[in-house]
Amino acid sequence: MTGEEMHALVERLYPLCRSITGDGVRRTLEIVGEHVPLDVHEVPTGTQVLDWTVPKEWNIRDAYIKDPSGARVVDFQRSNLHVVGYSVPVSATMTLQELRPHLHTLPEQPDLVPYRTAYYAETWGFCLSRRVLDGLGEGPYEVVIDSTLADGHLTYAEHVVRGQTDQEVIISCHVCHPSLANDNLAGIAVATALASRLESPRLTYRFLFAPGTIGAITWLARNRDRVGRIVAGLTLACAGDRGALTYKRSRRGDTGIDRVMAHVLADRPHTILDFSPYGYDERQFCSPGFDLPFGSLTRTPYAGYPEYHTSGDDPGFVSPQALAGTLEALEEAVSVLERDGRYANLSPYGEPQLGRRGLYGSLGGRSDTKQAQMAMLWVLNLSDGCHSLLDVAERSGLSFRAVAEAAAALDSAGLLKRVGEGG
Amino acid sequence: MTGEEMHALVERLYPLCRSITGDGVRRTLEIVGEHVPLDVHEVPTGTQVLDWTVPKEWNIRDAYIKDPSGARVVDFQRSNLHVVGYSVPVSATMTLQELRPHLHTLPEQPDLVPYRTAYYAETWGFCLSRRVLDGLGEGPYEVVIDSTLADGHLTYAEHVVRGQTDQEVIISCHVCHPSLANDNLAGIAVATALASRLESPRLTYRFLFAPGTIGAITWLARNRDRVGRIVAGLTLACAGDRGALTYKRSRRGDTGIDRVMAHVLADRPHTILDFSPYGYDERQFCSPGFDLPFGSLTRTPYAGYPEYHTSGDDPGFVSPQALAGTLEALEEAVSVLERDGRYANLSPYGEPQLGRRGLYGSLGGRSDTKQAQMAMLWVLNLSDGCHSLLDVAERSGLSFRAVAEAAAALDSAGLLKRVGEGG
Amino acid sequence: MTGEEMHALVERLYPLCRSITGDGVRRTLEIVGEHVPLDVHEVPTGTQVLDWTVPKEWNIRDAYIKDPSGARVVDFQRSNLHVVGYSVPVSATMTLQELRPHLHTLPEQPDLVPYRTAYYAETWGFCLSRRVLDGLGEGPYEVVIDSTLADGHLTYAEHVVRGQTDQEVIISCHVCHPSLANDNLAGIAVATALASRLESPRLTYRFLFAPGTIGAITWLARNRDRVGRIVAGLTLACAGDRGALTYKRSRRGDTGIDRVMAHVLADRPHTILDFSPYGYDERQFCSPGFDLPFGSLTRTPYAGYPEYHTSGDDPGFVSPQALAGTLEALEEAVSVLERDGRYANLSPYGEPQLGRRGLYGSLGGRSDTKQAQMAMLWVLNLSDGCHSLLDVAERSGLSFRAVAEAAAALDSAGLLKRVGEGG
Repeated sequence: MTGEEMHALVERLYPLCRSITGDGVRRTLEIVGEHVPLDVHEVPTGTQVLDWTVPKEWNIRDAYIKDPSGARVVDFQRSNLHVVGYSVPVSATMTLQELRPHLHTLPEQPDLVPYRTAYYAETWGFCLSRRVLDGLGEGPYEVVIDSTLADGHLTYAEHVVRGQTDQEVIISCHVCHPSLANDNLAGIAVATALASRLESPRLTYRFLFAPGTIGAITWLARNRDRVGRIVAGLTLACAGDRGALTYKRSRRGDTGIDRVMAHVLADRPHTILDFSPYGYDERQFCSPGFDLPFGSLTRTPYAGYPEYHTSGDDPGFVSPQALAGTLEALEEAVSVLERDGRYANLSPYGEPQLGRRGLYGSLGGRSDTKQAQMAMLWVLNLSDGCHSLLDVAERSGLSFRAVAEAAAALDSAGLLKRVGEGG
Repeated sequence: MTGEEMHALVERLYPLCRSITGDGVRRTLEIVGEHVPLDVHEVPTGTQVLDWTVPKEWNIRDAYIKDPSGARVVDFQRSNLHVVGYSVPVSATMTLQELRPHLHTLPEQPDLVPYRTAYYAETWGFCLSRRVLDGLGEGPYEVVIDSTLADGHLTYAEHVVRGQTDQEVIISCHVCHPSLANDNLAGIAVATALASRLESPRLTYRFLFAPGTIGAITWLARNRDRVGRIVAGLTLACAGDRGALTYKRSRRGDTGIDRVMAHVLADRPHTILDFSPYGYDERQFCSPGFDLPFGSLTRTPYAGYPEYHTSGDDPGFVSPQALAGTLEALEEAVSVLERDGRYANLSPYGEPQLGRRGLYGSLGGRSDTKQAQMAMLWVLNLSDGCHSLLDVAERSGLSFRAVAEAAAALDSAGLLKRVGEGG
Repeated sequence: MTGEEMHALVERLYPLCRSITGDGVRRTLEIVGEHVPLDVHEVPTGTQVLDWTVPKEWNIRDAYIKDPSGARVVDFQRSNLHVVGYSVPVSATMTLQELRPHLHTLPEQPDLVPYRTAYYAETWGFCLSRRVLDGLGEGPYEVVIDSTLADGHLTYAEHVVRGQTDQEVIISCHVCHPSLANDNLAGIAVATALASRLESPRLTYRFLFAPGTIGAITWLARNRDRVGRIVAGLTLACAGDRGALTYKRSRRGDTGIDRVMAHVLADRPHTILDFSPYGYDERQFCSPGFDLPFGSLTRTPYAGYPEYHTSGDDPGFVSPQALAGTLEALEEAVSVLERDGRYANLSPYGEPQLGRRGLYGSLGGRSDTKQAQMAMLWVLNLSDGCHSLLDVAERSGLSFRAVAEAAAALDSAGLLKRVGEGG
């Protein structure tokens, strides 16, 4: 999948009305499933998941506010952001004054419609631009939300690429936001693209497409015994805006994925943030009981752009180039995870004679300083079973690629032996 | 006690002639005892205390140098700084030339009288301004020091506010300096004010009013078995000048009190200094055999202002506002010591659902970023039994108060359990 | 030996044609042996040393390229750099076109002759300036290298100054470079000077004069059981150019010698570099199997000056002042190694009373701040058996000398006891 193809997927998913449950999520997963096979899970309302309970399922057919002339002044058919997520059904005639407590606007961004939800409070509301609100007369208005909130299921999906080991890398993205392109259709598109490209990896890769918070909590509740297999994880969100890549560290701050991402991003414009217990589902994966090696990869981070959680986060806010750039960094991270490891130098007393093994320029003084040879010397020097190849790359200032290639050459020459994982 | 009341105490104590022993110290402790009850200890001359011996007790009634006209050109009655502390008695007629080896001035501060002592050398001397010295003729002079140096006692006092635990916080201030206001009547006044304000604390607070060096050594010698109870200590000195607050770290540099003071001072103009084995009685408390978690709180530090140890350090050098500011910082430190602790999140797998417990705004997207909610998320995330609330405050950048309030709310909701001390 | 005498030694050694084996090395060691007695070791060709094999011995009598007029256009007699080290014998008539693959120049430094070797490839070649090459006609040329490459020996030497303990400090310098003054006749001269000055040290000092790489590997192979005695080591090279002193850390980066050199260089213009597995024989001493506390002392580091490995590195490039400066820093490092240690304060509870032992100004307030007294207080405070005198110097900001003198005074007064090595 190219940047353009990822962008096309964003555009196709954009109109669907997703929430933390319901048919919008199901339809989204069907479309993703056209690119990579998915295992779809349906978890019944009322299921206890950790400290939470799977809520009722919410679906919506239509919603509007009609003015006295019969015109739909707020219309769900034009944008699903107009309805507060999880609004209970309503059908009433109300004055503007009666309606006001149910209307949400952004006074400082008067042309944008905000995104609001009320998952765990039985209430209802509409979101609209300040300008539209300011133009409304006293009414009366016909107010309709044709929704259902009833026992049903929470839906999430997994795509697993089995590797040679059970050790798992998790790529998680939330699928609960309605018409918001960067947050998180971009994350879904990049995850889908990465999933479609992975072939015969060493590690196992598990992609999660699940609603935010309750989805991650449900997955964790149902996979509590398996989290010990997770060697690295990333929540992927806001993956398509034009800002620089941003990595937010895991709770522990120095896990393998933290170091891998720092190394991968070092060559790109980027920002690295310390962990905070706010943002995306790293909040759940990094809760103290799990404390997993989970970071978050975004471009502009959570709540960091004015269009965040507004109608301004539309497909035009996301660019094919940015999607491709995020994918490229992610693939480089996968490459480090795949190739990293700890090695033992089998000839650790003094330097082994590289020349006689064809690994060294034989005429002293001419080509000694080449990066490939420096990489071999660094790998030999630090391959004491304690340092990983990523350690070598960090300490030497060489690229991981150069270090990994040196290790491969030395391994072929019988000078190295792999003794363990990296990280 | 307000800043004005503390300043009034400084002014009242100022004229007394204190030294490391003698009636000046006793009278000082009587006056402090009018504000907070004191246990006064009298330790006989000759008592062995650690490597030292309690010296003879020194008292003085009068001292002067009279010129040939009978005028007192140097007069103890005008300022007790004029006599070198612990001067032995003298009564003689001397020329200026004979007197000179016994006269101390500050050539670079010609209007000020220096403060000098000779505790452990049987000698005598006078201190005077350079200008007065320069105006003296050849004499002869009548030279009188009407002092006694004889077996007696060393006097110090304690005020203890018992808490729920035996763990002790020590506030120590030296009471051996004569007419010097900032060093250390200001420290005495702030300590007295804090002592008078403490009510039903969790920890036990012990205030020491003792002569410098020999007093701390005497207290340590007599309380050697109890120092294990000390969880934090501060020497308090130079607490009333107009400079910024200064905290000098303990020998270990990372003890609880070091972290508490850094946090408390972070919001104020301040300086933090590393430990050095010079200054006030932290020298003794931080000697390697004891190595206690003892720092030093001052405004301008030891020897850091031109008026230091001169007649310029008079009550005008100390301000009520500065005294009140020192007290306020000290009270905030006490508040952190009182409230800090390590907690365990009782719902550590994923985030607990705060909304259903009334701890979270129910309408997503509107008020999520409030500091109180961030504080709850941080406390939950880091309450793994290892991190203290102060750790949480440091890592989150939130105030200790916000973190402690979040912990209290979570504790009330049954989501946290206190598992140990902070620090 | 003064700077001038070291420079004279550089000049005397300069014309000899050294390589990793052969009579040039033997003659060099004879001359060094005139200053300090040497144990010379001869290791036969074919001896297995770690992963390497001692190569054939190389010697050379003459070499030249004669143009059609019979003029020597390239002449070993003028500079031994003209022949690629370890060139096999050749005697042929060739056109310039045939010769070209055997000619080495520095196109960007057209007036300089490069230094090249081909130790482990049976080949031959000449080095010349680009200007000379550009002036050559098509020939034919008479090409002669009158060398021998045959079974023989590798030669290296040791000079040992026995101390009171078996713990060893190694000073190693390579002796395999032909007419290159800074790299490494300067290192040889400074090592020789230091060796001649050491008298009755506490530690044992071993000076190694050995060819680069294969010499260090040979020494390590033959002394594998003794390396545990090594408490500090330095490779000494490029010791005479006009650049600032440069210390390159050991592989571990925080060993005793790393800290000693950082302290010694702190008062001088200097650079400190992290370890890298390239440079001089620290590569071998710091290979992971040995991982010795070995740094490298140079002025301008390895390959860091344009004259490096060219005919520009002649005795004029080295100055007596720079040689003397390197020696001085090295002697100061030896002084720290000799005097450092961990002490226990025998009166650790509170400060001992220095005044009654004559170690403290008796009149308080006048001379308390003197460096000597601060040094005593610091030594007493940190002498808990854990901190070395160098730790005290580092933490206090005082000079090692002041700290060591304070420790000596306190030791004499019975207040300290030496309990272990520094580092």
